[in-house]
Amino acid sequence: MIYSNTNKGGFNVRLTGIFAPVPTPFLEDGSLDEKGWVKNLEIWSRSSLDGIVICGSNGELPFITMEERVRLTALAKETANGRLKLMAGAHFPSTRETILCCEKLAQAGAESVLLLPPHYYKGNKNAILKYFIDVADASPISVFMYNMPANTGVDMDADIMIKAAQHKNIMGIKDTSGNMTKMGYLAAAAPDHFAVFGGTGNYLLAALSMGACGGTTAASILYPNSCQMLLASFKEKKMEKAMDLQRRLLPVSDAITTRYGIPALKAALESRGMVGGPCRLPLLPVSEEVRKEVLDILDNSGLDQYETWR
Amino acid sequence: MIYSNTNKGGFNVRLTGIFAPVPTPFLEDGSLDEKGWVKNLEIWSRSSLDGIVICGSNGELPFITMEERVRLTALAKETANGRLKLMAGAHFPSTRETILCCEKLAQAGAESVLLLPPHYYKGNKNAILKYFIDVADASPISVFMYNMPANTGVDMDADIMIKAAQHKNIMGIKDTSGNMTKMGYLAAAAPDHFAVFGGTGNYLLAALSMGACGGTTAASILYPNSCQMLLASFKEKKMEKAMDLQRRLLPVSDAITTRYGIPALKAALESRGMVGGPCRLPLLPVSEEVRKEVLDILDNSGLDQYETWR
Amino acid sequence: MIYSNTNKGGFNVRLTGIFAPVPTPFLEDGSLDEKGWVKNLEIWSRSSLDGIVICGSNGELPFITMEERVRLTALAKETANGRLKLMAGAHFPSTRETILCCEKLAQAGAESVLLLPPHYYKGNKNAILKYFIDVADASPISVFMYNMPANTGVDMDADIMIKAAQHKNIMGIKDTSGNMTKMGYLAAAAPDHFAVFGGTGNYLLAALSMGACGGTTAASILYPNSCQMLLASFKEKKMEKAMDLQRRLLPVSDAITTRYGIPALKAALESRGMVGGPCRLPLLPVSEEVRKEVLDILDNSGLDQYETWR
Amino acid sequence: MIYSNTNKGGFNVRLTGIFAPVPTPFLEDGSLDEKGWVKNLEIWSRSSLDGIVICGSNGELPFITMEERVRLTALAKETANGRLKLMAGAHFPSTRETILCCEKLAQAGAESVLLLPPHYYKGNKNAILKYFIDVADASPISVFMYNMPANTGVDMDADIMIKAAQHKNIMGIKDTSGNMTKMGYLAAAAPDHFAVFGGTGNYLLAALSMGACGGTTAASILYPNSCQMLLASFKEKKMEKAMDLQRRLLPVSDAITTRYGIPALKAALESRGMVGGPCRLPLLPVSEEVRKEVLDILDNSGLDQYETWR
Repeated sequence: MIYSNTNKGGFNVRLTGIFAPVPTPFLEDGSLDEKGWVKNLEIWSRSSLDGIVICGSNGELPFITMEERVRLTALAKETANGRLKLMAGAHFPSTRETILCCEKLAQAGAESVLLLPPHYYKGNKNAILKYFIDVADASPISVFMYNMPANTGVDMDADIMIKAAQHKNIMGIKDTSGNMTKMGYLAAAAPDHFAVFGGTGNYLLAALSMGACGGTTAASILYPNSCQMLLASFKEKKMEKAMDLQRRLLPVSDAITTRYGIPALKAALESRGMVGGPCRLPLLPVSEEVRKEVLDILDNSGLDQYETWR
Repeated sequence: MIYSNTNKGGFNVRLTGIFAPVPTPFLEDGSLDEKGWVKNLEIWSRSSLDGIVICGSNGELPFITMEERVRLTALAKETANGRLKLMAGAHFPSTRETILCCEKLAQAGAESVLLLPPHYYKGNKNAILKYFIDVADASPISVFMYNMPANTGVDMDADIMIKAAQHKNIMGIKDTSGNMTKMGYLAAAAPDHFAVFGGTGNYLLAALSMGACGGTTAASILYPNSCQMLLASFKEKKMEKAMDLQRRLLPVSDAITTRYGIPALKAALESRGMVGGPCRLPLLPVSEEVRKEVLDILDNSGLDQYETWR
Repeated sequence: MIYSNTNKGGFNVRLTGIFAPVPTPFLEDGSLDEKGWVKNLEIWSRSSLDGIVICGSNGELPFITMEERVRLTALAKETANGRLKLMAGAHFPSTRETILCCEKLAQAGAESVLLLPPHYYKGNKNAILKYFIDVADASPISVFMYNMPANTGVDMDADIMIKAAQHKNIMGIKDTSGNMTKMGYLAAAAPDHFAVFGGTGNYLLAALSMGACGGTTAASILYPNSCQMLLASFKEKKMEKAMDLQRRLLPVSDAITTRYGIPALKAALESRGMVGGPCRLPLLPVSEEVRKEVLDILDNSGLDQYETWR
Repeated sequence: MIYSNTNKGGFNVRLTGIFAPVPTPFLEDGSLDEKGWVKNLEIWSRSSLDGIVICGSNGELPFITMEERVRLTALAKETANGRLKLMAGAHFPSTRETILCCEKLAQAGAESVLLLPPHYYKGNKNAILKYFIDVADASPISVFMYNMPANTGVDMDADIMIKAAQHKNIMGIKDTSGNMTKMGYLAAAAPDHFAVFGGTGNYLLAALSMGACGGTTAASILYPNSCQMLLASFKEKKMEKAMDLQRRLLPVSDAITTRYGIPALKAALESRGMVGGPCRLPLLPVSEEVRKEVLDILDNSGLDQYETWR
């Protein structure tokens, strides 16, 4: 396969750092809560986050129309004003809608796009590879792949991801499979421009130890300093500190992702001075019982001490 | 849960018969092939089919925008002109887009809608039930549920489907799970207005023997008479005939669904005088080798003898 | 592969009928309850069963030593005295222990053996095929294959089973996968000597409609007449009767297999005058609540009316 | 649950270090190759290994009779003569056979036993917990749990493992699930006497970073020094060295476990001066092609430089 291989996004240097896959706030009637979005963006812009992912899985990606994604991105561009790198979810099931979305998000100010693999029709590895190549060829901004088997039912093979990584406009992968063998193979084979990111705060340190150079973690929405400290401690070989932070992050991250999902994440945001609000249906709110359990987990993590910026 | 329970679609009598989940034809540039669509509709209108499903899985549902679904439905209404019952795929990931789509499809002439369960965020049975109830409450036309775990990764529990079946505007289920235990429980528990349909020609006879009252089978796109004869033979207790037809249908159905998917189905349509054409990307065409294998399977099935109407 | 292809078991005619995969009774200390075994055998010998499977999954196969399997078989030979065909579970993880067990079971009076595929080490189809061929070559009695993915984690491919079916000393398959596509392919490809059996009463009629010629069903331990009537009704094209029986069998079969397992089966036996008793550890008894639920399901099935022989 | 809670094995101190789950050598006729076993034991006794696992998954556990396990253990006791800690696989499907095996292995000189969870009959968490408790109560030597879902189809929940860890005679867990969330929860909840071991060299460093205190890795059969250096580098915070070793170990470990299994491991042993030989049937040897690929992976790892002791 011959790639056009123009690095349109200008990502000549491998991306690193901590990105927050932020939730999308809604009003009670299910429409976008633009005020809430701007308020949260102002908070995150003051934080130690390197960037945010707009309309990722935590952003209720499949429920957000293309126009809404554009609007959310434009508001983020305006509000963050360079203080946050902006990656936006451009995936649609068809290649044509995905490419169209890439173009519109680029115009709105996104610096890169996050893309799931095709997943409704399963079983064709070549179709997955061609999807990424086609979009990367056409997109004005760089593509970050997103392996998320728990939601898509598709766990991309390492060889497909490594092939796609040769494309200069495919700048990295967020792998949330939890497969450390895959993480290790990816990191070892990554070209210079290609970033391998861990996809969860549950085991960010494990991903780093296998060669990941950053993370996109839901926990960083609430605890950006904690995640940055974990990354820095790892780089500085302060392993006790890194392991202590990881031990504290695990139950927090697990509660707001795998165990209770976005409704719990939004309840947690409310507790820490950000705008949470309802999810779009069919997602249901957490019960009062779960809400309390989640907040207890946050309180007991001891991580709030590091988040003095809030 | 209290349902509004108005049977808006007027389905007081349980639906029966054979429905074809037809493919959507595209031009080489990926745009809708409206001429091809009308041509195929005219062919199917002359057939023994009871109805068609527009924009089901075979219709490349996730790749078709709401506007396109409306256009395809309007053309079908105009062309079939009462000769085919029209069920249309209205599923979107969010409840609000699904309801909007139901309204538009009803205006365009659909008589019922086919709905997948929510499936990107997994694990909440109540969310699935509420989705169907909310849409059934709001939809001007009746809802047919669609259990398709191979594509969605969600296999709806029998108890959820049975609860949903109590809603008067939920008229049936297409179950493609292949789970005969579930099929048996569903058929035994179905209220009078509720139709349990087998979801594939691979084992339509098995589904009927467990109590299904009809089928939505890809094989009926090409072999409507064969499928209708199987159903009639079963009802008339001509089991040798029914089993002979099932034995012949199995490899045909399997080739154009599970094994090689929509690209193979479209190649098969071309061979039988209908418009096939390319799929939308990311779906790739079948290789020449597979195309030949599929056509051989069709030729060897001996079923073309029954399809004298084509 | 060249088979020795001697039909050592003398199964020149395809096996048909209803076989009961009977449980193994134990005393409270976990030792074999030989008296209970003989008592049950006398009951089953008076029934309409064609045969029994000794030490199948319901017989707690993995917990029974080779010597115990031999003892159980010898007692069955002595007690049934030709009134029941005797198939015995000879599977061990290694080929050598399996072959040794086949020899011993043949000496003890078994007429055929039931064999799971190798399953601890997964992923080698050739190893599965060679296992069956090696055992069939060496075994003095014929081999019945047993596909049981829910327990083994291995779902044998149809092509492997069809290749194995060419061996003259491999006489059939009990397929409990529930995959009707596979059942249909197997039945269509079966040589004259090869029997395809449905593996559960949950959907015996579906299996028959796809071409199965008999069944090995846990429900027949308690309801042999009901199962035989279902089979006869199907053959005589009395489909209402067959479907009515299937509808009644489904919840019974499901409760004593998939839902609550052997402990529930044993509780059910007790309620119908047979010896149940405890399972071997690690299997735990059913709770009193589950026991009552299971007996209610039996009582409500309406099938006891057919079991006047008990 | 009240445990007897006598620490019979004397493991008051948490186990740490690197254990090799060694293969069992066979002669061409499938019988034990005792000479080969002793030869390998002498080699491993001279190595930096802390101990070995006799008759684990790599030791073809399910194919080895109780008497053979005893014989292998006795030979190891005699040969290693205190230079290696001896853990032996005592799992049988029934609790009674497992307990009997524990007693015999203790007499033969094993210092602890490795135990899979019950797995043929699935779905009962209480049965799994009770199995470990019952065996730990009865066993004269301490129990090491073994979570191996790829082979058993059972992935033990963290809460079950944490409950079992309270038993004083349950001394640790080898977790080969690859689930870093589980690893983190286990390590955080482990009592002082309880060791959490990573179960593969594919990502030993990731396991350590999540809190594991040792590893049972197939790679250490061939590369004990490399594994020990990885562990030591991690403890000394020489993360570049640890990561470099991990990067080199990954393809080696993957090739001799997940990808090509025991036959490849045995071929690799032959290449490094140890006795490999055939597996017991139904396991088949690797093809010549795979053998070469595996040896290339070993050669290219650059790890042989550290194994000067061989």
